[in-house]
Amino acid sequence: MVGAETLLRTLVNSGVDVCFANPGTSEMQFVAAVDRVPGMRPVLGLFEGVVAGAADGYARMADKPAATLFHLGPGLANGLANLHNAMRARSPIVNLVGDHATYHRPYESPLASDVLSYARPVSGWLRDNAEARMLGEDTRAAIAAAWAPPGQIATLIVPADCSWNPGGEPGAPVTRPSPTAVSGETLEKAASALRSGERVLFLVNGPTVRRKGLELASRLAEHTGARVMADTFTARMERGAGIPALERFPRYPEQAVELMRGFDHLFLVETVPPVAFFAYPDQPSWLTPESCQIHTLAAPGEDAVGALEALCEALNVPADAARPAQHAIPEPGTGALTPDSIARTVGALLPEGAIVAEEAVTSRGSLPTMTAGCAPHDWLSLTGGALGQSLSSAAGAAIACPDRPVLCLQADGAGMYAPQALWTMVREGLNVTILIYANRRYRILYNEFERLKLGQVGDAARQLLDIGNPSLEWTHIARGMGMPATQVRDAETLHKTMAAVMREPGPHLIEAVME
Amino acid sequence: MVGAETLLRTLVNSGVDVCFANPGTSEMQFVAAVDRVPGMRPVLGLFEGVVAGAADGYARMADKPAATLFHLGPGLANGLANLHNAMRARSPIVNLVGDHATYHRPYESPLASDVLSYARPVSGWLRDNAEARMLGEDTRAAIAAAWAPPGQIATLIVPADCSWNPGGEPGAPVTRPSPTAVSGETLEKAASALRSGERVLFLVNGPTVRRKGLELASRLAEHTGARVMADTFTARMERGAGIPALERFPRYPEQAVELMRGFDHLFLVETVPPVAFFAYPDQPSWLTPESCQIHTLAAPGEDAVGALEALCEALNVPADAARPAQHAIPEPGTGALTPDSIARTVGALLPEGAIVAEEAVTSRGSLPTMTAGCAPHDWLSLTGGALGQSLSSAAGAAIACPDRPVLCLQADGAGMYAPQALWTMVREGLNVTILIYANRRYRILYNEFERLKLGQVGDAARQLLDIGNPSLEWTHIARGMGMPATQVRDAETLHKTMAAVMREPGPHLIEAVME
Repeated sequence: MVGAETLLRTLVNSGVDVCFANPGTSEMQFVAAVDRVPGMRPVLGLFEGVVAGAADGYARMADKPAATLFHLGPGLANGLANLHNAMRARSPIVNLVGDHATYHRPYESPLASDVLSYARPVSGWLRDNAEARMLGEDTRAAIAAAWAPPGQIATLIVPADCSWNPGGEPGAPVTRPSPTAVSGETLEKAASALRSGERVLFLVNGPTVRRKGLELASRLAEHTGARVMADTFTARMERGAGIPALERFPRYPEQAVELMRGFDHLFLVETVPPVAFFAYPDQPSWLTPESCQIHTLAAPGEDAVGALEALCEALNVPADAARPAQHAIPEPGTGALTPDSIARTVGALLPEGAIVAEEAVTSRGSLPTMTAGCAPHDWLSLTGGALGQSLSSAAGAAIACPDRPVLCLQADGAGMYAPQALWTMVREGLNVTILIYANRRYRILYNEFERLKLGQVGDAARQLLDIGNPSLEWTHIARGMGMPATQVRDAETLHKTMAAVMREPGPHLIEAVME
Repeated sequence: MVGAETLLRTLVNSGVDVCFANPGTSEMQFVAAVDRVPGMRPVLGLFEGVVAGAADGYARMADKPAATLFHLGPGLANGLANLHNAMRARSPIVNLVGDHATYHRPYESPLASDVLSYARPVSGWLRDNAEARMLGEDTRAAIAAAWAPPGQIATLIVPADCSWNPGGEPGAPVTRPSPTAVSGETLEKAASALRSGERVLFLVNGPTVRRKGLELASRLAEHTGARVMADTFTARMERGAGIPALERFPRYPEQAVELMRGFDHLFLVETVPPVAFFAYPDQPSWLTPESCQIHTLAAPGEDAVGALEALCEALNVPADAARPAQHAIPEPGTGALTPDSIARTVGALLPEGAIVAEEAVTSRGSLPTMTAGCAPHDWLSLTGGALGQSLSSAAGAAIACPDRPVLCLQADGAGMYAPQALWTMVREGLNVTILIYANRRYRILYNEFERLKLGQVGDAARQLLDIGNPSLEWTHIARGMGMPATQVRDAETLHKTMAAVMREPGPHLIEAVME
């Protein structure tokens, strides 16, 4: 078999059975091998940002990597922004990049590029396959590297001749690696701090923000008086009635500094010390005061749930100490479409088992509150700050969980970085409801302009901040990619439309034109 | 004044007065400065690929750089594919990338990234601004580097604190640098080869493929029996009645090898030795046989026109030896929409002074022939092979030349990598007619599948090669971005629609649904 087939069989043998792709000539051997090797689902994106974002959303929900397939350096480049988000989400991805044949690389052909330089910033593991007969082992190593907790992007560059030369045997199947246990010493130090009566903040992320970790963290907090917060952005949070609700760490440094003054100990659980999202003049980047001791209870990839269990045991925390969120469904919003009225409507309609892919940016408003008491659901956030992720991650999540409804909450400006995801949703018949927050401006930049004390926005600057001229008509854009779509202008119509749409299979886009 | 203002004034003082941008928080000082400093036209792209592609199209037509403005590593990453194309076009671009404040960089904030690693592959010149008071000089150096013949991308990374700290005096104005003269020795060798009676091929690119260079090359060829060809892809070619027409070097290696057998000397004029676009099993990458001597008459950035003039003089070539293309307008196409019927219609309607931005890919067909005898026009090609360029480069060309009609010939699959360019065209009121070749498949990949002898395309592989399910409805996509649009299904309607649309100001999209 040719190298591409060896590669493909290695993927399928390890259960990596979805490949998000936008191939070109140098990947044609892989495309042909998909016909010969059963068990791989190829999913086409018309733009590589969709490929990367979908692989991210898939990994978050499937807890295993998908493969991506990019065409040379420029194809990879188009995927980098969403790979950056995936890297921050610690999503496992087997990131395959076709390159020119090894002997063709020295020449300055039109598409020759420095693939390694493009790949390095997002890749936790990076290998340039040197010959076809190594493709089984290289692919196996890539899967293992991607999947090793906490998860990362493993990039394997595959020159065209390695795809078409004889590839030998597939690599051995990879099974999901387990997280490393936290040391007894770390646990003892943590227990002692918790017994001290001093003020403790747990900052959590990773698998800890799913039901089991949240219950353990809540038990500890209720019993010891510690506070638990999630990072501002988390890859996947389980939430809803019956699951302890988590506050999020504040986004802006002045709020964070104020908060952190209240603690003597910061326990990091599958995360790193908090820093400001952006620098501002006269604001600190580092948010933890000298007086607060930082402890890493579990580094990303360590067994945080096991560590929390051990702590509960060491401190004799009762099994029923956790405080789960109460069932509470808001009344649907009324009147004009505002962040708040939309949040109420979302809360009123969110079905059990829903996956929410959210990139509402400045329209987020009261979404967290209004959905906290809904039936249990998963919430996917933008982790890396590179806008244009949620449509794609919603597509990937829907492929990972075909039996669950997906709701994509997407700001209009951010959505325009990769609207091609709509096409993939239609092609794959995915059960995704998309709600576009159409405020028709980069409102976040108006906020930042003000935060930076830059005065009034003038006419020239407005050319770079307003996106309302011409108005984006998302219903047309959706129909252009084969998706049914409805525009709504008041909360009552939104409620009626959303209720109807969520009962139907397949994707539907609702454009909520805001005040 | 703050650093951002120093930067902006330096640009404007050198005539860099258009900035294609997609800014974020770290670029807000620049946005605010646009209000204070007259003379800069800010042009927003909703996706950074548009920003980069427009800057490329602008540079090709304006013969001077525009600035680009990207937000951090991920924003730059979204622009890289079209920056790659711009690099291959040798387009001058002052490529500004905002980054986190210098003191914020060491922290792992969500948007922290290795901007240098992303920028390096496309940047002929690359500098990371270290302090605000250096921004005048760094910007001056970037403009000079970008503009120096043959033109390149000069990337200046601007940390946020350098934008908001005092920036000092603007840098000195930069005037367009001149190309270096070709040495007398090189000219003598060339003249001697041309006198030898041996078989000579001139391969030309750069400014040589504009009227003056083409006339000189044609005089030489007609007088000496040499053959002149352009590279397969050229950034900007002048063509039409009265201008000598150029053959293009063949795209596929088997054709190129066959061609090159016929020559004893290859003269490179503002280009490099030809290599295969892609490698194929049993096909060479290097296309020039050992028996053919390669001479660099003018390297890219050298004064090729001056060299050709000197050669004409040395060989006593008569002033009237050039063979210009004859005026010839085809009859418009009839019947079904095929590459040929569309090419005829384009040829029948192409107005004088038109700028054609062409990325028709496999639908190109007889376009070169059918337009060769039209009134003089410029033709912009995809130079770097990264699909999704022409809509954006058409926008940039229209901004560079507001009084000239722009025709964008765009394949549907390629167009979907960056359709957001349509919005910028509407916003800026650009006089662009867009013709979408809707064949609803990646036909080029079917061709490549066959060239690689991969047999029949099966059902699974087809999932990665067909884009017809769902059909893209480009008229809806265009209307979604505020652009009037018309779908046509036969050549007569195409002719009628195109004739009408090209008489109107402002953009209009025509989707030609092909057989």
